[in-house]
Amino acid sequence: MPLDVRPEVKETPFGVDVAGRHVPGVLWTPTTADGPLPLVLIGHGATRHKRIDYVLALARRLVRNYSVAAMAIDGPGHGDRRSIAADEMTVFGEFLSEWSRPTSVDEMVADWQAALSAVRDLAPVGQCPMGYWGLSMGTIYGIPLAAMDPKIRVGVFGLMGLVGPTRERLARDAVNLDCPVLFIQQWNDSLITRTSSFELFDAIGSPDKRLHSHPGDHSEVPPEELAFSAAFLAEHLAS
Amino acid sequence: MPLDVRPEVKETPFGVDVAGRHVPGVLWTPTTADGPLPLVLIGHGATRHKRIDYVLALARRLVRNYSVAAMAIDGPGHGDRRSIAADEMTVFGEFLSEWSRPTSVDEMVADWQAALSAVRDLAPVGQCPMGYWGLSMGTIYGIPLAAMDPKIRVGVFGLMGLVGPTRERLARDAVNLDCPVLFIQQWNDSLITRTSSFELFDAIGSPDKRLHSHPGDHSEVPPEELAFSAAFLAEHLAS
Repeated sequence: MPLDVRPEVKETPFGVDVAGRHVPGVLWTPTTADGPLPLVLIGHGATRHKRIDYVLALARRLVRNYSVAAMAIDGPGHGDRRSIAADEMTVFGEFLSEWSRPTSVDEMVADWQAALSAVRDLAPVGQCPMGYWGLSMGTIYGIPLAAMDPKIRVGVFGLMGLVGPTRERLARDAVNLDCPVLFIQQWNDSLITRTSSFELFDAIGSPDKRLHSHPGDHSEVPPEELAFSAAFLAEHLAS
Repeated sequence: MPLDVRPEVKETPFGVDVAGRHVPGVLWTPTTADGPLPLVLIGHGATRHKRIDYVLALARRLVRNYSVAAMAIDGPGHGDRRSIAADEMTVFGEFLSEWSRPTSVDEMVADWQAALSAVRDLAPVGQCPMGYWGLSMGTIYGIPLAAMDPKIRVGVFGLMGLVGPTRERLARDAVNLDCPVLFIQQWNDSLITRTSSFELFDAIGSPDKRLHSHPGDHSEVPPEELAFSAAFLAEHLAS
């Protein structure tokens, strides 16, 4: 029976202040790390938070199977950014307002950049190439981030289309992407139409892109795509 | 440096006669095989043949990486079924006529079944679960085969839509599929429209199905999908 030599996962909470906003985050690294590590930034979806099940599963898989570090931060009005807990519909309603605020995207991009500076003090990450993974709200903020940060060399996006208050910004930033991209779409997504998803996939400028679709609604992305995501990110960060 | 313990690939040509038709085929097995092997049937595309580059690459990958056997046969009017070589356009034109012949699908299904009987005498295959891989013409004949043979437990189809003379048969057989399916589509396919591809994907009855799309024309499926296909087939044949 082969010895399991996969590294254990160290989880380090952190926080950083950006222009009056407190940004709570989590960093996941291998306990055995002693050199620079590739890093994946994970952006959660609306109503979720930085330690929601699929974020945690992806982060742990990246660390254990590939020795790739991962980090996540709470989105605006989400997770530990809230002083008072609220039900899902309330959080979603607030997000729709936030999404309409003209500086929402620039602020979240600034939050990611500040969080990146902070994790560089915690572990040997952020110097090597980075990847981004985020669906739905994670794509709304993630495509603009990936389009402006040349250290992001691979991206997983999806569950989003050319819709909503930032659709023109999203389209412009998508065109400017040039890293390899995996785009995840749900065939029966009742929030984001198939047509608008395909418009966003079409807009992505990267010549190396692929679309993976599965039957089911918005939140029913199967575990298979988490596994593929981790392998895809790790492969591109290793090369 | 780890020892490479991957099996070598044994290639065995064979032929079988079915209702006056001679069907030439190839079987690929691990040289080290000593027990029953899962088997993947590989159906090539129009104008190609049983030993075209991508068929050979997939067969060898299945044997070497997964100890899964593979077989291929020439399609009607293709490869060694031709007495006189012809250029690609001639073969394609002849295939369009063949596709319109009312018994074309039933005959090719019978050819596959006869070939399966033949390879059972050559190696310990055909008793374990089987998989099917075939795009374009390989899907035209492969979906009907998979729909009627319950031993086919996993399928890779694509580069095809609900089009052509057998579209009604194809739609009926697609509905009857219930094995896990990977459907491969090319985003800029100039032969098969995106809409008709999506109609065929929609028609497939299997609850466990996924669609993978890449930019590019009909014949530009990237190596990534061959690698994914092999892993997908092997995973489902092992379980």
